[in-house]
Amino acid sequence: MERLPGFRDFYPEPLPDGEAWSANVRERIFQSWRQVASLYAFQPYDGPPLEPLALYTAKSGQEIVGQLYNFEDKGERAVALRPEITPTVARMVAARERHYKKPIKWYSIPQLFRYERQQKGRLREHFQFNADIFGEADPAADAELIAMLIDLLRDFDLTAKDFVIRLSSRNAWQDFFNQNGGDESKAYDFYQAVDKLERTAPEESEKKFQALGFTLEQVRNFIAAAEPTEELQAVLDNLAARGMSDFVKIDYNVIRGLAYYTGIVYEAFDRHGKFRAIAGGGRYDQLVSLVSGGKKNIPAAGFAMGDVVLVELLKERGLMPDVSPWIDVYALIEDESKRLATLKLVQLLRDDQMEVDYSMVPMKPEKQFKRAIEVNAEYTVKLENEGNVLLKNLKTKQEEKIPIDKIRDRMLEAILGDDSE
Amino acid sequence: MERLPGFRDFYPEPLPDGEAWSANVRERIFQSWRQVASLYAFQPYDGPPLEPLALYTAKSGQEIVGQLYNFEDKGERAVALRPEITPTVARMVAARERHYKKPIKWYSIPQLFRYERQQKGRLREHFQFNADIFGEADPAADAELIAMLIDLLRDFDLTAKDFVIRLSSRNAWQDFFNQNGGDESKAYDFYQAVDKLERTAPEESEKKFQALGFTLEQVRNFIAAAEPTEELQAVLDNLAARGMSDFVKIDYNVIRGLAYYTGIVYEAFDRHGKFRAIAGGGRYDQLVSLVSGGKKNIPAAGFAMGDVVLVELLKERGLMPDVSPWIDVYALIEDESKRLATLKLVQLLRDDQMEVDYSMVPMKPEKQFKRAIEVNAEYTVKLENEGNVLLKNLKTKQEEKIPIDKIRDRMLEAILGDDSE
Repeated sequence: MERLPGFRDFYPEPLPDGEAWSANVRERIFQSWRQVASLYAFQPYDGPPLEPLALYTAKSGQEIVGQLYNFEDKGERAVALRPEITPTVARMVAARERHYKKPIKWYSIPQLFRYERQQKGRLREHFQFNADIFGEADPAADAELIAMLIDLLRDFDLTAKDFVIRLSSRNAWQDFFNQNGGDESKAYDFYQAVDKLERTAPEESEKKFQALGFTLEQVRNFIAAAEPTEELQAVLDNLAARGMSDFVKIDYNVIRGLAYYTGIVYEAFDRHGKFRAIAGGGRYDQLVSLVSGGKKNIPAAGFAMGDVVLVELLKERGLMPDVSPWIDVYALIEDESKRLATLKLVQLLRDDQMEVDYSMVPMKPEKQFKRAIEVNAEYTVKLENEGNVLLKNLKTKQEEKIPIDKIRDRMLEAILGDDSE
Repeated sequence: MERLPGFRDFYPEPLPDGEAWSANVRERIFQSWRQVASLYAFQPYDGPPLEPLALYTAKSGQEIVGQLYNFEDKGERAVALRPEITPTVARMVAARERHYKKPIKWYSIPQLFRYERQQKGRLREHFQFNADIFGEADPAADAELIAMLIDLLRDFDLTAKDFVIRLSSRNAWQDFFNQNGGDESKAYDFYQAVDKLERTAPEESEKKFQALGFTLEQVRNFIAAAEPTEELQAVLDNLAARGMSDFVKIDYNVIRGLAYYTGIVYEAFDRHGKFRAIAGGGRYDQLVSLVSGGKKNIPAAGFAMGDVVLVELLKERGLMPDVSPWIDVYALIEDESKRLATLKLVQLLRDDQMEVDYSMVPMKPEKQFKRAIEVNAEYTVKLENEGNVLLKNLKTKQEEKIPIDKIRDRMLEAILGDDSE
């Protein structure tokens, strides 16, 4: 039986076929995400992985359906596996916003799903770090989010030589569009054409812009001028105060494809230009209103970073975190009459938060010792006669004999000593 | 827009309507699960939340479909949201078992889904801790799993007065069934009747057993005698060596409903009998063979514990972990000309792994101070003239003035001191 195409199995360690995924790597990445989010005083939330289809069509129109894992459930509801969590969090905030002091700073690490028929070989699920600030319209909120994004990437030892955040503004583009006589009903088509500009042949872009009453040159000149708006300047000053200027630049090529952005937008890119965007976000002040049918109106801004491009980048830069499994202690049982007494010792050590393994069935001493090395144990313990334990440090090869009633203190001392390495 | 019935939103903190769920509680529970699993030297894994429907029907027959969130995807594949992860891990192990030294000790914390039309008001998703040992047929593996289950519950301060693990054996039941002339093709119906015995009217059970060639009295006598088999005795002795005898008892009422158990089975119950089973598991030596179409044959045993009953139990016993949010530092900005310099200070502290918040926009000093208390800050910092920082401990109300180039060391000292409380 095979798994479905586009889905990943997470084995504890990376598979030898070159895939960098593993459950241990994933957990290490999530830990880092949770940790940085807490430094920025963000609180965790999560919503259902399955939502009413209408939650997504309300925001993005019927055309989104072609990209969704959607179906009819047994209660004849049109439902979809979440392709993003922003509509969910907007729904949650709209439902309970009066219970919260503003601004609300929240993050989540959902698994997301997309089903696009044509994309063979591409993943249909990924994990994403999502952070949002609700209830603060000032660009200072965008700056706080961008600073967190920078620290999320720095936490994996990525530097300003590795990535840059390209800052732009939907407001700036909107002004440009209006001032040059753009037809408001076509604004979304215009944004889409700008969004795809870097990946589209010039003739094709020219055609698209002309149909909207613009020329490619006009658009290119606007991008080249890159005059920061007042709000972008506020973000730049804010980030400069944090010592983060090297990580950002104004770049009007960025506009973000989705319809709902309203202000500052940004994307994080590999400096070498090898990968798709690492992360992206912006301001979407109308979203809560949209999702709540106009009942609530709360400014909002946020960004998302997926696990896939991040891991590709870390791998390429040789920065994959080392998550080789290891344990504190392997308990050797060379004399089967000591098995039950050894189990007692194992429990004693686990009670003190030590990671302990042992052979559950009789096994040759050499094989047990080999196993201790395979599981990367720091110590072996062996119960000897007269209530003594032989403790061996597998790194230094040092052995010492310790009375069993002293083993707890001795081990805690040893392990704590190791942790401070 | 409402969420789907049977699904939960996880807000950061529990909702005031009495639900105990929250993202912070969930994360605290998962942390505990991961920690105890690592003490027992289990490694994490995960699989796709969506699997081929056949993975479940292969194991449990077509009747399972009525309980699944199943649908046809856009590629016309019959798929289902996973109702359990055991078939997935059996598939994963079958695919790569030759790469692993045995025994394989793995755990996972998947979200699982069930759709049963009739069960109004019941959850359609939950999270589950799953642990399995592959490649070890000895009851010592069952004992290792049961010991971990006990420690998982003890980690929430539950004691032998709160819960008990009822141990039983499919082998014992199989022997009883065979020795009393049971028809092998009806064995599963018999197990089902035993499984439901405690929740079924005696007359109805009597009817069921008679149809299978047994009497209710015969079954009850077998349960009452409760003679441990050799393998059960081995488990009892093993757990006794760990000092865990008080947490287990032989109880042949337990048999586990699912078809695939083959040996020792068990369920953890609230001693007061208020809740459904807290956890359950057993041995399923044929499962890998079943899932791999007979290609692999690896003994396996495991258990699962959901988040729902656990939280109900903890709540009822007053043992819900305290997960009130707090931060290390709230930075006060009373003089707007110091905003950018304060942002620099905020970054300095966050760089040293301190959780810091501040008001992103100008705010009255009293309001900022109120906010510091609301977000449960341990300290406030305020940038003063001549490069000094006023540090205030909100618990002791003590204030001290520190040169900004010393704040890092002073704060680390203070925070580390607090952590050892």
